[in-house]
Amino acid sequence: MIRARVTGRIWSSKRIETIPKGSLLEVEAEGGERLIAFDPLGCAEGEAVLITRGSVAAGYFSDVKAPIDALIIGSIDEDG
Amino acid sequence: MIRARVTGRIWSSKRIETIPKGSLLEVEAEGGERLIAFDPLGCAEGEAVLITRGSVAAGYFSDVKAPIDALIIGSIDEDG
Amino acid sequence: MIRARVTGRIWSSKRIETIPKGSLLEVEAEGGERLIAFDPLGCAEGEAVLITRGSVAAGYFSDVKAPIDALIIGSIDEDG
Amino acid sequence: MIRARVTGRIWSSKRIETIPKGSLLEVEAEGGERLIAFDPLGCAEGEAVLITRGSVAAGYFSDVKAPIDALIIGSIDEDG
Amino acid sequence: MIRARVTGRIWSSKRIETIPKGSLLEVEAEGGERLIAFDPLGCAEGEAVLITRGSVAAGYFSDVKAPIDALIIGSIDEDG
Repeated sequence: MIRARVTGRIWSSKRIETIPKGSLLEVEAEGGERLIAFDPLGCAEGEAVLITRGSVAAGYFSDVKAPIDALIIGSIDEDG
Repeated sequence: MIRARVTGRIWSSKRIETIPKGSLLEVEAEGGERLIAFDPLGCAEGEAVLITRGSVAAGYFSDVKAPIDALIIGSIDEDG
Repeated sequence: MIRARVTGRIWSSKRIETIPKGSLLEVEAEGGERLIAFDPLGCAEGEAVLITRGSVAAGYFSDVKAPIDALIIGSIDEDG
Repeated sequence: MIRARVTGRIWSSKRIETIPKGSLLEVEAEGGERLIAFDPLGCAEGEAVLITRGSVAAGYFSDVKAPIDALIIGSIDEDG
Repeated sequence: MIRARVTGRIWSSKRIETIPKGSLLEVEAEGGERLIAFDPLGCAEGEAVLITRGSVAAGYFSDVKAPIDALIIGSIDEDG
């Protein structure tokens, strides 16, 4: 997994039907890489999150054909 | 997923038979990486798109052997 | 697999329910890349570890839907 | 997928038995990355090719255990 | 696949039980990346090898849960 920080959200009106309902958040990983992850937890901008990638991300969904390759699996606890 | 912009289209006359019918678009990802993605949505040059990669991209097709590792799953809404 | 060194641990109170019980360790790979891996072995900070990534990492868990894409599979023997 | 150019061919006399019969070509991807891909199409040195990677590459073979993670799926049409 | 050269071997006494019996070799890929691959062929230090990565590497093993994401599938023939 990678640690990343939420930087925004994207909207996509024109899209394939198998994208699950929910938020698609823009995140920036520790090394500076930017990606878009599905958020099942309701994370906010600036929140530190834990992201899993690849086919295991799609395994979260009941539809085995969910085309999701990056998933927020947790919010990372931060001090104070 | 990654955010990318459509930069062109490729044609391939000599190809394996399991490539699904449809467009293969050249895109440039946010970090500058260039890749080729299958487009089921009819996207145009310059359009901002959302791309999923790996085996989940192939899961979109009814032929489980579709050799597609990058798929445009949506067009990203942009202001004005 | 990659060789990495344990640099810390993360806690995540708000998380999806399919994350298996156990430690999530921060590691730094040989090339400097930082990632978070599930630790089934009880490794300590500073320990050199061997990490497998991708869907084979999830295969370790009895729950086939474990959203884990990086797993410590061994501690690397070091001299003296 | 990625666009790459064929730069050579490799031979391997000592190898595991599950490698399918056929050519293994050296290619250089657009970004400069070099990899080795299985070629089912009979491509020549200098030819521009389209490569798929990961488990979908192995899906091309009837033997589900083919250890191939990069496959040439087409030759890219080039002008003149 | 990638071309790499064997640079050493690692030992791991404390490890999960599903790692198959055999050698784990350190290799350096063409681009300088260092990784650890399972060796079913008995390769020596300095030997040029062909490596497959990801879930297809695990497919080599009869135990479908082998946590191996990098496998030496051949030794590359080199001239005199």
